[in-house]
Parts: sequence; structure tokens; C-alpha cells
Amino acid sequence: MGLKRNKISVIGSGFTGATTALMIAQKELGDVVLVDIPQMEDPTKGKALDMAEAAPVQGFDAKIIGTSNYEDTKDSDLVIITAGIARKPGMSRDDLVNTNAKIMKAVAKDIVNYSPDTTIIVLTNPVDAMTYTVFKESGLPKGRVIGQSGVLDTARFRTFVAEELNLSVKDITGFVLGGHGDDMVPLIRYSYAGGVPLETLISKERLEEIVQRTRTGGGEIVSLLGNGSAYYAPAASLTVMAEAILKDQRRVIPSIAFLEGEYGYKDIYLGVPTILGGKGIEKIIELDLTAEEKAALDKSAASVKKVLSLLS
Amino acid sequence: MGLKRNKISVIGSGFTGATTALMIAQKELGDVVLVDIPQMEDPTKGKALDMAEAAPVQGFDAKIIGTSNYEDTKDSDLVIITAGIARKPGMSRDDLVNTNAKIMKAVAKDIVNYSPDTTIIVLTNPVDAMTYTVFKESGLPKGRVIGQSGVLDTARFRTFVAEELNLSVKDITGFVLGGHGDDMVPLIRYSYAGGVPLETLISKERLEEIVQRTRTGGGEIVSLLGNGSAYYAPAASLTVMAEAILKDQRRVIPSIAFLEGEYGYKDIYLGVPTILGGKGIEKIIELDLTAEEKAALDKSAASVKKVLSLLS
Amino acid sequence: MGLKRNKISVIGSGFTGATTALMIAQKELGDVVLVDIPQMEDPTKGKALDMAEAAPVQGFDAKIIGTSNYEDTKDSDLVIITAGIARKPGMSRDDLVNTNAKIMKAVAKDIVNYSPDTTIIVLTNPVDAMTYTVFKESGLPKGRVIGQSGVLDTARFRTFVAEELNLSVKDITGFVLGGHGDDMVPLIRYSYAGGVPLETLISKERLEEIVQRTRTGGGEIVSLLGNGSAYYAPAASLTVMAEAILKDQRRVIPSIAFLEGEYGYKDIYLGVPTILGGKGIEKIIELDLTAEEKAALDKSAASVKKVLSLLS
Amino acid sequence: MGLKRNKISVIGSGFTGATTALMIAQKELGDVVLVDIPQMEDPTKGKALDMAEAAPVQGFDAKIIGTSNYEDTKDSDLVIITAGIARKPGMSRDDLVNTNAKIMKAVAKDIVNYSPDTTIIVLTNPVDAMTYTVFKESGLPKGRVIGQSGVLDTARFRTFVAEELNLSVKDITGFVLGGHGDDMVPLIRYSYAGGVPLETLISKERLEEIVQRTRTGGGEIVSLLGNGSAYYAPAASLTVMAEAILKDQRRVIPSIAFLEGEYGYKDIYLGVPTILGGKGIEKIIELDLTAEEKAALDKSAASVKKVLSLLS
Repeated sequence: MGLKRNKISVIGSGFTGATTALMIAQKELGDVVLVDIPQMEDPTKGKALDMAEAAPVQGFDAKIIGTSNYEDTKDSDLVIITAGIARKPGMSRDDLVNTNAKIMKAVAKDIVNYSPDTTIIVLTNPVDAMTYTVFKESGLPKGRVIGQSGVLDTARFRTFVAEELNLSVKDITGFVLGGHGDDMVPLIRYSYAGGVPLETLISKERLEEIVQRTRTGGGEIVSLLGNGSAYYAPAASLTVMAEAILKDQRRVIPSIAFLEGEYGYKDIYLGVPTILGGKGIEKIIELDLTAEEKAALDKSAASVKKVLSLLS
Repeated sequence: MGLKRNKISVIGSGFTGATTALMIAQKELGDVVLVDIPQMEDPTKGKALDMAEAAPVQGFDAKIIGTSNYEDTKDSDLVIITAGIARKPGMSRDDLVNTNAKIMKAVAKDIVNYSPDTTIIVLTNPVDAMTYTVFKESGLPKGRVIGQSGVLDTARFRTFVAEELNLSVKDITGFVLGGHGDDMVPLIRYSYAGGVPLETLISKERLEEIVQRTRTGGGEIVSLLGNGSAYYAPAASLTVMAEAILKDQRRVIPSIAFLEGEYGYKDIYLGVPTILGGKGIEKIIELDLTAEEKAALDKSAASVKKVLSLLS
Repeated sequence: MGLKRNKISVIGSGFTGATTALMIAQKELGDVVLVDIPQMEDPTKGKALDMAEAAPVQGFDAKIIGTSNYEDTKDSDLVIITAGIARKPGMSRDDLVNTNAKIMKAVAKDIVNYSPDTTIIVLTNPVDAMTYTVFKESGLPKGRVIGQSGVLDTARFRTFVAEELNLSVKDITGFVLGGHGDDMVPLIRYSYAGGVPLETLISKERLEEIVQRTRTGGGEIVSLLGNGSAYYAPAASLTVMAEAILKDQRRVIPSIAFLEGEYGYKDIYLGVPTILGGKGIEKIIELDLTAEEKAALDKSAASVKKVLSLLS
Repeated sequence: MGLKRNKISVIGSGFTGATTALMIAQKELGDVVLVDIPQMEDPTKGKALDMAEAAPVQGFDAKIIGTSNYEDTKDSDLVIITAGIARKPGMSRDDLVNTNAKIMKAVAKDIVNYSPDTTIIVLTNPVDAMTYTVFKESGLPKGRVIGQSGVLDTARFRTFVAEELNLSVKDITGFVLGGHGDDMVPLIRYSYAGGVPLETLISKERLEEIVQRTRTGGGEIVSLLGNGSAYYAPAASLTVMAEAILKDQRRVIPSIAFLEGEYGYKDIYLGVPTILGGKGIEKIIELDLTAEEKAALDKSAASVKKVLSLLS
């Protein structure tokens, strides 16, 4: 009996997984279990220990452990999946999809084996298809399996707009639908600076450039880093979704959600505005779209369906 | 005119430098310039951009840029040096010391060239000697050139004690003098859990084990990671020192300080309890030591002197 | 030399002034001087001391003192005026305006006497006229004298909307122009839940009820308290404006600003969207208004002019 | 199903109760129910609403309601009792004790009626006796009924020491045993500045003055305010205890705990160092006392027993 901390497991101890673990601990959202494959157990333990040693200095109370044993994830309140491989030169898209799908299946099985009532957030790319795979394999209710992409896409958009207007990032909002990256469907008319529609503050041409930069925002980082991909903003995005769920905040957050007719699609995971709270996705918000927006979303959905079809 | 944010430059965009930049930005301590050599400019820009894209999600306002041009550090209120190489297999200690000393000299010159009145915190190893080198090269007053080691050493000690007693890290304090790592001189009698001396809560043998684990705490992480060294706790340690200075908090923090007779030493940088505030090291706190403690500190000081003698 | 904390003086140690002092200290925005008239010096000191005693427990570093001597406000970076009387039964509006105007004049003089380059935020009612009075008396540039009303009005609106939709307050935004309370001109079309226009989520009738409740939000609290008026939300509103200025955040915040032609008005302080940063009001954002909105704003401006005309 | 926020009820909507509600909400520790007697229902609702309206501005998600109906406290995870009267001129100590004991009994009954498994923190004076009363009436296990006094006493001590040494409050610790105020037994030898024993930094005489000022710290505020008593530091003290329990932090915190032989006392609530976590008081830490300290504690215990004997 007594009050207990939440328990969050982060699968994949790469840069994104590790940074997510840190950010969750910094916010004292609960104890963190960082999980990777047996071959990575020592580095995973090393990162967890290093983070734990930051706790007295940063003043947060959270147990952080590294492990390759899923038993340690038992009774997790939330699980975040960052595991998977990145596409390498020469690798076909099919190979990428099927390799990561295989990983998702194994991970999902291990997770629900020890936490049958948990909620899962998926980051692994291609994220729409991977979230679908985890949903199918886990057997969890649809609201309990959620993909991340919109928070990150809008974070990049907001950063570029804040820089363009030289304003606080706190007051810039963005809005996207659809898939991640190239498939992103930005709704500029729902994007603001302090409530003022961006269209009245930035020229159409400049806004289009910012949207385009957002679409390729992941690639921009990859190209600069030379070796690896973004992890700070992805980790921050996962953390805000985790916080909304763990603190039952009922926040309005774009999530990759399972659609059963919403926006006219079925049996697909796609990025839509959702209400995230203690039960996971508590509601999908449906918006009236213009013909142009609907066409873009159709294209995005088709693109996701195509990736799903690659799943053997 | 008007109120302006502080400006903090972090030299070295490796894991420690980058994580320090993030933590400083998260706390809104000021705008951050992450600096590395020209060959690393793109990855440095990539990390800075990735962090900037985390800002809207984490809700902090801080400009973060990556650069290889010291002109961008102009008028920094604080500079943190994490640059330098790690000792590689086959490399002699002399080589390490002199390579990093060369880097320190170049960096120090570049820093004061653009920020003649700044304060500098040094992390690069061997940190006592490197802080000395930066002090000499920079021409800054002694209180304005400060080395980090005690915050990290005590952070590790506190982590291990909190785990041993299953208590909040918030209530565990530790106390060290002397050099970093093996040269560390722990003052157990000044270490507490909620104000209760640890000696009354943990057996002498177990405490000695914890001290020994602390001494080799850096090596423990290196050994686990397999490829690289700790960065989360070091970054947190740098950040708390930065905060004490930037917010003029007059905190009691162990720092590597230039001694001019304190504790019986001269012309040496050594870890001692200090008061850190807006002027840097505002005071060195001198404690009465037992004969045993003084002997250990003598040994630590001799060890630092020996490294200094390697400087060509 | 060295880095120094900002200094913020809060004039008026009533509930709003004291709560503002606390919130500023909690955020470590700087040291706080709480000022009241000589007859209130002891209670002012008592509140300041009580707050200072909360600091070790809440973990903030800020000197907080109570005083009736303006010399203690010397070199304030920011001054917040909450002083003044509330309208009492039987008191004419003229009496209220002129009594508070007299207080504003005295306070403004004392402030600039010791802090000739400061920035001032005014809360005292009727706030549009009182901000005007402080501006004229202080001789400060217009961007340096700012009135609060829109942050509070939108805070109430956001609270009611969040409750209506059972959503996080973090994702609800509101937008107002014009005077405080009854004179408030809400721009519903610029108010959102997670970026989604409220008009698509709440019926027109219900929105109108919420707007009406917002208009009379101050009165609702007065009526419930029975003896006194709101102070938590007003203090939070002042604090967020202070933070934007002290941290040079360039936030988009509704402020009572001096207009010189903007929105078609001159020589008047009126609530408009502004950019608040280190220089105070750095810009007034002008929006295209519908005829209906412009008419409402005209009425609000006329109402403010009428109060100004009462100033003897 | 799904994750839910904690629920905290605060009994008594006076300044301390209301400020505690605010601080708990600011930290997003859970939803807050502020309770007072039916005659105070409207002001209680007014304060709760005013706080709720601060939430969008301060960025915290917490439902805050005011009520006089204990049904609204149903299933509280934690209850904090601040209700009770203050001693008035001409009122005998007996009258004060018995009046507040009567209130405690009624409140305790109402609390456990709706939250039979909750944890209760008591602030009402004389706090040792009132905590005892609530314990007996509630029927809760001893670890689940806890009194506050040591956090506040040490907070005051730390404030005075930080001022004396011009150091950050973050680095000053204090240590007390025994009753509140005059009965306080300070353990100076367990009080530090950055780990350095205060006895080495401040003269014995000056330390004694600071201890004496701490003893009468409540009276100092009463005397300054002229009308009422301290509430900021008391509220902060309650909040840190609440946080330790709600987040299961296992912090080392001085609490008023039920003794069954510890320190040689039985059937008494007295201030001792405790470990506060999810189960309430999880452990009492027993320290070796000097003869002088033991004598002072005996006196303090006798004084508490005397008050208990007044309970009719």
C-alpha cells in the first residue's frame, strides 16, 4: 500500500532513448527503466548510471536503471519505443520496414508480457507503420498505442517561425496532420504567433519555405551531424506526450492514432489532433478540411498504406 | 539599453559540451554558443539546431547556436571549456597533458580576445593542470578561472549513498578536497543524510567501499560505455556551477581554485570548498584538517604538481 | 564588477503585491523589494520575512525585503505598482480615480527618483488611466510604462474554456483588446484549443456566456470573497509580464500600451497585443479588425477617455 | 482505468491553507480540494477560483475547488489540516487546546469517512497535541498521521543563517528535535553551511541568538503583521512534506511522529527526524543525544504531555 511513483520503460538506449530517459527523470515523472538488447547491456547500464549521478546535482528523484531483461519493465505505466535501425546506404525501403517491424513485434510482445495494461508510445521509423505493427502485436486497445511525429514536426516549425519573427518560442503554435516528414500536411491557417494567424505576419512565400524546411527538418539534422540523426527534439517530443498521459493532463497534441473512419480512413495509423490523457488517446479531434488539405491528407494516407503493404 | 539575457559559450561540442548547453538552456540561464573546431562545425551546428528545436516543446527561451568562429562568443558572461582529447591506448600521460595544454592555451586566448572580462569554468582533464594553464594564458583574475571536479565527485558519492540507504538524493551531501578521481580526498565526517553524519548510518567498511567506488566513478562509466566517458553528470555539475555564478547565488560549492597560501599551498589549482557567486570564486573556505586528511591532501597536491611539471 | 541579480520593486504590499513578490522570488527572477506606506511598514516587513523563510524550503535564492523607504528601491530593473485603494460603497468614480491618480503620481515620482531608467508595470485600477498617469508623471519612454489587464482577462477566459472542454489550460489561448473588465473586447476568432478555433468546438451561445463571465470575472471573485478582490491570478499575470521583460523573451502578450496612432487612437493607454522584451513594449501588433470589433474597441477607448477626463 | 492525478484535500481555507493549495497546484502534485466550514464556503470558492485562474498563466494543470462538503474530498490521497482557531487575548490555553481538539475530532472523522486509507498532515496548533488527537480519532496507522513543525523551524533557522553568512539558502541545513517554537531542541552540531558545521563559521554567542530568534520566529511574524500569523513559510513546509509523500521520495524530514519507545518516549507525538515516503512516516531515525540534548528533549516532551493532559 501507499503512494508509488510511476514507472516508465524506454526501449532503445540510443541517443533518443537515453535523452528521453533523462528528460523524464528531470521532470520527476517516475522511475525509468532503459532497455536495450543484451549486446548493449553494458553501455545501457553506463548511460543509466551516468544519468543517476546527475540526479543529486539537478535535484530530481528518480531511479534510473539500464537493463536488457524485460522482467525489469514489469508493471510499467508507460512504455516508449525508440528501438530500431536507421536506413543505411544501399538498404531498400522494404528491408528497413521489415527489419524494424520484426523488432517492433519482438519488443511489443516482451512489453505486454510484463505490463499487460500499459500504454505505448512509438517513435521508430517509419513511425506510422511501426505504430500499427505494435498495435496489432500488443493486443492493447487502440487508444493505448500511440505514435509520435506531430509534436516534433510542429516543434521544428515553431522554432523556424520564432526565429523568423524573433519571438519567444512559447507563443508560436503550429498544426500538422498526416505522416511524418515529407508526408506532413501542415495546416498553416491553424498556426499562430500569440494567437495571431501566421499568414498575417509572414509572407506566403516565406511561410512555404519554412514549411518545406520543416518537412525536411530531420534530414537537415542528419546532414549536419554527418553521422546519426536528431535526438534532442525527438526526446523532448516523447517526453511531453509521456507527461500528458502520466499526469492525465488531457492536452491537445497531434498523435499518430488508429483511425476507424475518422477523416474518412480506416485500419490505418495516421497523424491527427488528439486529446492525450491518463487513458492514452482519449479523443480524436476531427476538423473540417479544405479540398486542398483533404487531398494532401489523402496522399499522406496513401503513402502510409503503401508502407504498410510492404510488411510481409 | 534594456535588459538582456546572459550569454554563455561552451567550448567543445562533444557529449559533455552539448549536454551542458542543453541543461543551461533548459534552465533559461541565457543564450548559448556551442563552439568547436572548424572541422566539427557542421555537427556542432546540428546539435545546436536539434536543441533549439527542443525549446518550444520544453518551453524554454534561449538562442542556441553552433559555430567554429570565436567572434560569435563575443561578450560572453561565462565560458565553459570542455574541449580536449581523451587519453588513448598507447598515449603517454605527458602527451595527453601537453596536447590538452596546447588546446587550453589556444582556447583561452580566443576566449579573452572576444570576452576580456568573462569568467571561465574548465572541465578538461587533467583538470587541475588545465585550469592552471587557462588561468595563466587568459590573464584573468584568479577568481574568474575555476575548475570543476568536486561537484561531480560528490554527485557520484551522493548517488551511491542514496542507493545504499534508499533515500532521496536531495538529502544526501558529500564533501571532497583535492584532485579529481584517484587524488580525491573525501571528508566523510562532513557528509550527511538529512544532516545525520553518514558514519552513524553506514558501516566504516561499507563507506570505504563507496568512497573507493566514487574515486573510480569515471572509470566505471568508461568501462560500461566501452567507447567514451561520462557526460550527463559532468554536464549537470558544470551547469550548477554556471547557475551559481550567473545568478550570483553565493553557493558553497567545491571548486578547483588557485591557492595562494590557503591550506598551505601556493601557485597551484586544487579542489577546495569555495563560495561561488557573481564574481566567480568569491571566497575559499579553509577548514581544520586532521593529520590524516592533511596528509592525503598533501599527496593530492603533490600529484597535481607533478602533472604541472609535465607542462613543457 | 561581476554578474548581479536583477532587482524588482513591488509597490503595495496588499495581497496582490505580496503574492507577486512571492511568485517573482519563486522563479528566481531577482531580488525583491516590497514597498508600502510608513503606516504599513511592519506588516510589509512581516510578509517579506515570511516569504524569505519559505525560500529554503522551496529552494529559491532571492533576497526579499519589506520597506517604506524608496531609497531601498534604488536601481530597480523593474517596478510593479499594485498600490491604490479599492472603490468603497458610497465612493464616486471620480473620487476613486483622483485618489488613485494622486497615489500614482507620488509613487511614480519616488520610483524614478531612485531608478531613472527603470521599467514600470501598473496594475492599479482604473488601470488604463492609472498607467497613463504614471507615464506622464514618470517621464519614462512610452515603452517603459505598461499596464496589465489582458493577461488576467485571457487567463480567466482560458480557465473557463478549459473547464468547459475538460482540457489542459496549457492548450487554451484567448485574445482580448481594449479596456479591462466591462470594456474588454474579446477576439473569439483568435482564441483556440490546441490551435483549433474555439468557434468550432463551443456553441456561439455558450461562448458568449463564457465571454460575459470573463468580463465580470473580477466581480465574481469580489462577490465570493465578500471582503476583498482577486489576487492570485492578478499576481500571476504581473509575474509573467515581469518575466518576459527581465528575461528579454520577446513574448506576444496583451498589454496596456500608449498609442500614437495605432488602431486609430492617440494619446491614450489601451489594451493591445504587444511584444514584451528587455526594452519593455518593443512593438505593438496591429490587427485588421472587423467593423464590429472596431466599434467595440471605439466604445472601449471612449470609456477610457472618459475616465481620463475625470483626472483633475 | 488509466492513469489518474493524485487528489489532495486541504482543510481550512485561511491564508496558510490557501497558500498551501496554491503551492501544491503550482508543483502539479495533484488536484486540490480546499475545504472550510459552510459559513466560509463562498470565500473558499472564491480563493479556489482565483487560483484556478492563475493556472493558465503559471502553466500548471490542477483542478482546484473550494467546498464545505466533505463528500468532495472522497478518495483523497493526502489530507492537510490547517483548520483551527488562533489564541485570542483573554483566551486560556485550556480553551485554545480544547476548542481546536474539538475541531480536529470533527475534521478527522469527516476525512476518514470519505478517505479511509488516506494520509494526514496536521499543522494546527498546539500541533503535537492536535496531531495526537487526529491520530486517535482517525484510527489511521501511526505512520499515516504526521505533524508539521520541524520543517518550518529549520526553514527559519536556515534563513537567518543564510543571511548571517550571506550565502545561498540552498546550502544551509538545520536540525531540530522536540516541540514547536519555545520547546524546539536545535541540534547545532548537525547544522551546516555547504557541509561545514556552523559552529566553525559562526560564534557560539551569535548562533545562540539565531537559535533564540528561530524559537520565537512565529511570534516575530505575528508581531510584525499586527493582525494574523505567518503563512508563506508554513505553507511551503506543508508542501514539501506533501511532495515527499505523494512522490514517494523517502526524504529525511523532521516530522511530528507517534513514538512507541523511540528516544525513550511512549504514547506521544513529538518532533523527530523521519523518513517520509509513499507510506507516510516510513521510519524514525534515532540519534545518540548528548546529556544536554536529552535533557532539553525531556523538557520538550514534558511540555507536550502537559498540553495533552489538558484535553478533556
